[in-house]
Amino acid sequence: MRITLIGAGNLATHLGKALADAGNTIEQVYSRTMQSATRLAALLGCEAQTEIGNINTDSDVYVLSVSDSALPQIVPQLCAGRDGGIFVHTAGSIPADIFRGHARHYGVVYPMQTFSKDARLDFRKIPCFIEASDDGTLGVLQMMCREISDSVVPLGSDDRKYLHLAAVFASNFVNHCYNVASHIMRSHGIPFEYMYPLIDEVASKIHSMTPSDAQTGPAVRNDRNVIDRHLSLLSDEPAFREIYGIMSDGIHKIRNKS
Amino acid sequence: MRITLIGAGNLATHLGKALADAGNTIEQVYSRTMQSATRLAALLGCEAQTEIGNINTDSDVYVLSVSDSALPQIVPQLCAGRDGGIFVHTAGSIPADIFRGHARHYGVVYPMQTFSKDARLDFRKIPCFIEASDDGTLGVLQMMCREISDSVVPLGSDDRKYLHLAAVFASNFVNHCYNVASHIMRSHGIPFEYMYPLIDEVASKIHSMTPSDAQTGPAVRNDRNVIDRHLSLLSDEPAFREIYGIMSDGIHKIRNKS
Repeated sequence: MRITLIGAGNLATHLGKALADAGNTIEQVYSRTMQSATRLAALLGCEAQTEIGNINTDSDVYVLSVSDSALPQIVPQLCAGRDGGIFVHTAGSIPADIFRGHARHYGVVYPMQTFSKDARLDFRKIPCFIEASDDGTLGVLQMMCREISDSVVPLGSDDRKYLHLAAVFASNFVNHCYNVASHIMRSHGIPFEYMYPLIDEVASKIHSMTPSDAQTGPAVRNDRNVIDRHLSLLSDEPAFREIYGIMSDGIHKIRNKS
Repeated sequence: MRITLIGAGNLATHLGKALADAGNTIEQVYSRTMQSATRLAALLGCEAQTEIGNINTDSDVYVLSVSDSALPQIVPQLCAGRDGGIFVHTAGSIPADIFRGHARHYGVVYPMQTFSKDARLDFRKIPCFIEASDDGTLGVLQMMCREISDSVVPLGSDDRKYLHLAAVFASNFVNHCYNVASHIMRSHGIPFEYMYPLIDEVASKIHSMTPSDAQTGPAVRNDRNVIDRHLSLLSDEPAFREIYGIMSDGIHKIRNKS
């Protein structure tokens, strides 16, 4: 397939490479800045563009991996005069409807992963949640995605919103917990590296048991002695202390809930 | 060395196996219930005990892996009449001083890991934080621990309190974030398994970048549109909503801090 990439960030880079490796032709990379467009275009061996007016009109699929806030501006401009194409965005929290009235065939390809510039990823392992305006388009997206991922799952916009919300808990908030741990350790001269084996085991455990069953520590035992001592250690860090209190309460409550 | 295990829970099991595999003689396993004592004693090929009075007096090291709240009762009973032994506990948040006045030689061996019954662990990769009443005892504990772990680190009780606090953030609170994600997904019929690749990547990333650099998502971009939409999706889940708000604020604040 002939594919045009709109956006040249981390997600566009990983997705673009996977699509090119699967034998698709990447026709152009568009970005607002020539530097970003050129970097990714060079990687994929295609043309860089910074003018939407100069984007080709004959691609099979236009993949928009731009910030959520940029989509409402780009969508009408891009779709106009490109009736034959399929338009997809890659955002977890934006409905497919953003294309309605602008494109005939459209959809969403949401690869649920955290994409960093330097991190190497096996795209085949990334679950791709897809949605489309019509069955024909769904078939095309399914075919395109199955060539790059082992896990392609149709999912509507409403459920995808909640999936994206869950992903924020399981990635951004988890990473913030790592960050707080790192701050506490650093302020006591203990290298954060010592935390890696525990972090790895906590992530690994939930492959074979539910997070409820995997929970350990003072909160799940409702060990008020330890909890109160920990809270008092955080008296100079009100933001960390607040997280500690809320999370400990949450661990205790969710246990009685499930 | 001749070692006696006081306690037969998950930590005692993993530590006891590692110590036995390293060529030490486990003399006895003590537990309050015969069932637990027998289970671990059978695994280690030694005698089970449920009476502190029947514990041998000739071990080189007595390792106490019992609940924090049980320590104050067991310590004086156990130490009495066993002057030649070294007494260590394995609790992150209890100072070594709990032995003061009861034992001549004492200390702490804190293997920082989450221990589940069925999870297999490579003990060599678990950092063991040690502390002792005197240099001779520290030398013995260092020798004992280096035979089971590649990472043996002397650390005083005060710093260890903070390390244990950091571990609660990096393991229990992280696991709670997984649990919330799992609840949200389940209530929309999406299997939690789809979250594994993201969870694994988030844990893996911080081996090569700091948690601050690794942060992504709406909070670090201060994307109020997404944050407000997510908060409104959680209107029926006040406990999850509270975590979402606090964590998003925290991600934003810690960025300006560091």
